[in-house]
Amino acid sequence: MSELTIWTLDWVPNGPRGFVRDLRLRWACEEAGLSYRIKTVPFDGGEASHFPQQPFGQVPFLSDGDLQLFESGACLLHLARKSDKLMPSDPVDKAHTQQWLIAALNSIEMVTVPWWFLTVSGEKDNSLTDWMQKRLQQLENVLSQKDWLVANRYTVADLVMVDVLRLTEIRAFGDRPATEAYIRRVVSRPAFQKAYSDQMAHFEAADPTME
Amino acid sequence: MSELTIWTLDWVPNGPRGFVRDLRLRWACEEAGLSYRIKTVPFDGGEASHFPQQPFGQVPFLSDGDLQLFESGACLLHLARKSDKLMPSDPVDKAHTQQWLIAALNSIEMVTVPWWFLTVSGEKDNSLTDWMQKRLQQLENVLSQKDWLVANRYTVADLVMVDVLRLTEIRAFGDRPATEAYIRRVVSRPAFQKAYSDQMAHFEAADPTME
Repeated sequence: MSELTIWTLDWVPNGPRGFVRDLRLRWACEEAGLSYRIKTVPFDGGEASHFPQQPFGQVPFLSDGDLQLFESGACLLHLARKSDKLMPSDPVDKAHTQQWLIAALNSIEMVTVPWWFLTVSGEKDNSLTDWMQKRLQQLENVLSQKDWLVANRYTVADLVMVDVLRLTEIRAFGDRPATEAYIRRVVSRPAFQKAYSDQMAHFEAADPTME
Repeated sequence: MSELTIWTLDWVPNGPRGFVRDLRLRWACEEAGLSYRIKTVPFDGGEASHFPQQPFGQVPFLSDGDLQLFESGACLLHLARKSDKLMPSDPVDKAHTQQWLIAALNSIEMVTVPWWFLTVSGEKDNSLTDWMQKRLQQLENVLSQKDWLVANRYTVADLVMVDVLRLTEIRAFGDRPATEAYIRRVVSRPAFQKAYSDQMAHFEAADPTME
């Protein structure tokens, strides 16, 4: 059994804590009961310190024995193949799990992250708002008809979709009761709670001590 | 052998021709020698006509016998498993092919499509430009060191990456000689040329005839 290592930053300021994407990988391992260790690259060194492992200077990346992988979505697909707690073994359900994982990254996050980027740059009411509204409503329509994206059960597609939605101020865009219930349902899972509090503790432990 | 059907729109205006993403699926089938047919949903009916098949109202989607899939990235992963012309069978190369396919969608296209959206909305010099510049330079650094993203050969990761880059005005952001050579290398493939001209002919054939 090869050793899983999730790489993240040694420290980040308060703002991004709870949102750094190593959380996706910790969460998946917790759901699947896969043991893993955490290793770090320096926040202070900047992106260049880990370009050899991640050409876009991002975290997380994953080592599984000799295999090195980056892109949280690709790492999750790799982990999902290790456990049917993340992805059903039925071929049709498996294809639909991949479909919704990629929908979360390429149809939802492709709008929400740039929207968030413009918002924190001071453009609160920006040109991406209508597109964002539309995507959230389309997703609300889906979630009004089912509790889980695939096969009436939790999969890694729900993990990614909810992690994407957590960053979005859903409430700022009007009532989306099915989406809000879905987010609550998914983040109440013990594996999310464990991954979240582990990440918070990891960054807190690296805070400079007050004398 | 189940029958592959690629679904696209029956017609689009000149602007998006050559860029509608059914091209990604046609191209993959041409590379792999997979036979397929094209079916359409109406452009005039608007997105609602195919919400049952694609909850975000987009094309393409794919039928493979009874299996229905949307998201071009997920459809490509599905097709890639049918042929090692798209994805090598070695497990490490396979994981890296998925990694770069997802990098194209979630690290490059997540910047280029919103940037393009703001640009066509009239914001030529917009808040996403620095982010776009940075990503293109990081990719240039990668492509300066290798001709193909994975395993020294063409894979479906190159297909997606180049399809993403085609929409971006690379030249507008300064010299990126390795990226430009990469795009030329990939679009010169006969399978791309066939898919491209088939898509152009498909939409042209639906133009109203001039009397």
